[in-house]
Amino acid sequence: MAIFFTGTAGSGKTTTTAAFGRYLEGEGYTVGYVNLDTGVKRLPYRADIDVREFITVEDLMKEGYGPNGAIVESYERLRPRVSELAGKIGELEGERDYVLVDTPGQMESFLFHEFGVELVGNLHEPLVFYLFSPEILKRPQDFCFVRFFALMMEMRLGATTVPVLNKLDTVGDIEHYRRFLEDMNYLTARLKFEPPMGAYTAYRLCSFLPEVSAPVRVLFISARNGEGFEEILDVAHEYRCACGDLT
Amino acid sequence: MAIFFTGTAGSGKTTTTAAFGRYLEGEGYTVGYVNLDTGVKRLPYRADIDVREFITVEDLMKEGYGPNGAIVESYERLRPRVSELAGKIGELEGERDYVLVDTPGQMESFLFHEFGVELVGNLHEPLVFYLFSPEILKRPQDFCFVRFFALMMEMRLGATTVPVLNKLDTVGDIEHYRRFLEDMNYLTARLKFEPPMGAYTAYRLCSFLPEVSAPVRVLFISARNGEGFEEILDVAHEYRCACGDLT
Repeated sequence: MAIFFTGTAGSGKTTTTAAFGRYLEGEGYTVGYVNLDTGVKRLPYRADIDVREFITVEDLMKEGYGPNGAIVESYERLRPRVSELAGKIGELEGERDYVLVDTPGQMESFLFHEFGVELVGNLHEPLVFYLFSPEILKRPQDFCFVRFFALMMEMRLGATTVPVLNKLDTVGDIEHYRRFLEDMNYLTARLKFEPPMGAYTAYRLCSFLPEVSAPVRVLFISARNGEGFEEILDVAHEYRCACGDLT
Repeated sequence: MAIFFTGTAGSGKTTTTAAFGRYLEGEGYTVGYVNLDTGVKRLPYRADIDVREFITVEDLMKEGYGPNGAIVESYERLRPRVSELAGKIGELEGERDYVLVDTPGQMESFLFHEFGVELVGNLHEPLVFYLFSPEILKRPQDFCFVRFFALMMEMRLGATTVPVLNKLDTVGDIEHYRRFLEDMNYLTARLKFEPPMGAYTAYRLCSFLPEVSAPVRVLFISARNGEGFEEILDVAHEYRCACGDLT
């Protein structure tokens, strides 16, 4: 089965792909690796499929593009190859127990342009893990933001998406993060004490979260020390068996 | 007042900043321009404040960063200068009728890292226009995605955010887009006929949109031919007077 790691630049997609892959291999599974990032310089894993064989951001910048334009253009040029790429990933899925897919450095290249939507749509029931870092979680509304963002990703990609707090090793009080991410009543109550504007929108959105969200649990991992990797594997197992219900 | 144009790379932020600025000047207003994109090569307007004076993606790539790392790092290095930058924008607001702020090329640099959140939080009631392109709107759930994304932005930035379909000049059937973006009952009904997964999440989310969303209207513009610019100005006027209610 194919497992996608998504998230913004700096959320730890590449590190997680490499470290979780080693973990799976240690558990006796065969693992395939796919790199979809046209802008990455060095990878900490050996990619079986690598989009940089077709195009790199660096090449496009040599053609005269600025960095943003080059990133967008690289995925435009990959679009005609989406079915070919999906076919290759499908073949790799046939040969290995798990295929880990490391997505574009800038998440929006994957989520807002057609490349990612078409690629995921061409695969058989892939599972998506949405990684985010504790450093963006300051105010109560930030927790609501990442919970909703996982739903938005699920809607856009049409694939089950599990929110994952990464970099657990950098966090002092884990319970603080667990409470805000797992207990929607607690979060909603805390939003009442925040200053208006953003918090008001968050309050309304969050109150609806239990109703609109499928019962998906939040995972807590550290790609650096491997904490929580067994939970990712559990979720992948459950997904393969139950196909959808990740309570 | 400060007006922010946000959106993914390629949604037309820079073109809109320049063209809407010229429109405002033509209407007799004085306009200030701010560039927050560390990666842009050439600007079609003269920036009064430009983050490239402090740091550019190109410089960081020369230091050895890859394009993604350089983008992230550039905003990390700008963070200690956020209050200084907000102060300068505030001063410019005092001198001009409108200050147009062109945000980072990659939207996530603005929305997911602290730079954008802190900057917007340091300004007095700025208004945000979230630009998106018709080419990402293919399936009914894509319309729900952009409507919710505007809410997510409002929640994260704590500033009123108005969704704007740009590139109207490239669209054949405008009514098709209007119907899907403005009539939530129509959109929800259409989602019922879509294949499950993504559409199911979208259906649940969309059904709640009228309840969770403040009454914000969607704008339709073309930065290329100036269509819809008077509507942006109307919304800005109303916002300045009513502060919040943009029905």
